[in-house]
Amino acid sequence: MKELFGGPGRKSGLILRIGQCLFASASIGVMASASGFSAATAFCYLIASMGLQVLWSFGLACLDIHALRFNKDLYNHIVVSLFVVGDWVTATLSLAAACSSAGVMVLFAKDTNFCTVETKCSCGMFQISIAFAFVSWFLLAASSYIMFWLVASI
Amino acid sequence: MKELFGGPGRKSGLILRIGQCLFASASIGVMASASGFSAATAFCYLIASMGLQVLWSFGLACLDIHALRFNKDLYNHIVVSLFVVGDWVTATLSLAAACSSAGVMVLFAKDTNFCTVETKCSCGMFQISIAFAFVSWFLLAASSYIMFWLVASI
Repeated sequence: MKELFGGPGRKSGLILRIGQCLFASASIGVMASASGFSAATAFCYLIASMGLQVLWSFGLACLDIHALRFNKDLYNHIVVSLFVVGDWVTATLSLAAACSSAGVMVLFAKDTNFCTVETKCSCGMFQISIAFAFVSWFLLAASSYIMFWLVASI
Repeated sequence: MKELFGGPGRKSGLILRIGQCLFASASIGVMASASGFSAATAFCYLIASMGLQVLWSFGLACLDIHALRFNKDLYNHIVVSLFVVGDWVTATLSLAAACSSAGVMVLFAKDTNFCTVETKCSCGMFQISIAFAFVSWFLLAASSYIMFWLVASI
């Protein structure tokens, strides 16, 4: 199995996982502290999906730290196949959550005057949370491609 | 390069492309004939994205027919790499469009009473169109994985 930038048990892979965790946590934090987020199911789904991503990325970050510390080899076909399935499922759910929230946000901000009328809803914070979710998805997508490439290139 | 189910220049690949074209066209047709779709940007974006998918899948279906008819070999690294990039970009845009529309639809049908109040908006047709878009994305995602596997397994 080739050694790739961002692969499991490498420093670059660990940085990607930490980035995913941080941006997903930031997305949850900003969305949960915004008033009125529970009015839209899409925003609640964003929190749930980012929560799943935090758990998944944190788990893999711990595995990367363990592998780096004890010089373990994670380049095993079964292990990497499991990572691929988990990564792709999480990435698809994250993109779905970010896009559905973005769709609702555009409706609130552009198609209707909800944001100007309902001043108690913090539209600016919704937008920041969605932006963080997209960054987190982008980092997860990078990890997913690297993992898939590793499995396919055996 | 391995010969794979659904690969370029194969009957299974052609069936996948025709399926993508049909479901994307059906999604556009149903959405465009539903009254009040232009009220939400997400629904307009769904039409644009499905339009792009129809063009892309139709082009590749024609290439598959050409390859099958004249027994041409499309298993060329550069050609398949181009297919991979196009497939992934189109698949990501399609999923984004389907999810943003689904987010808005859930807001209309569940979070607010928009569908019961605004009876001139055909909510049922919006839902059918979004379902077609998801089927079309699923078929495109299958093609994308096969193409990516082909490129990575060289």
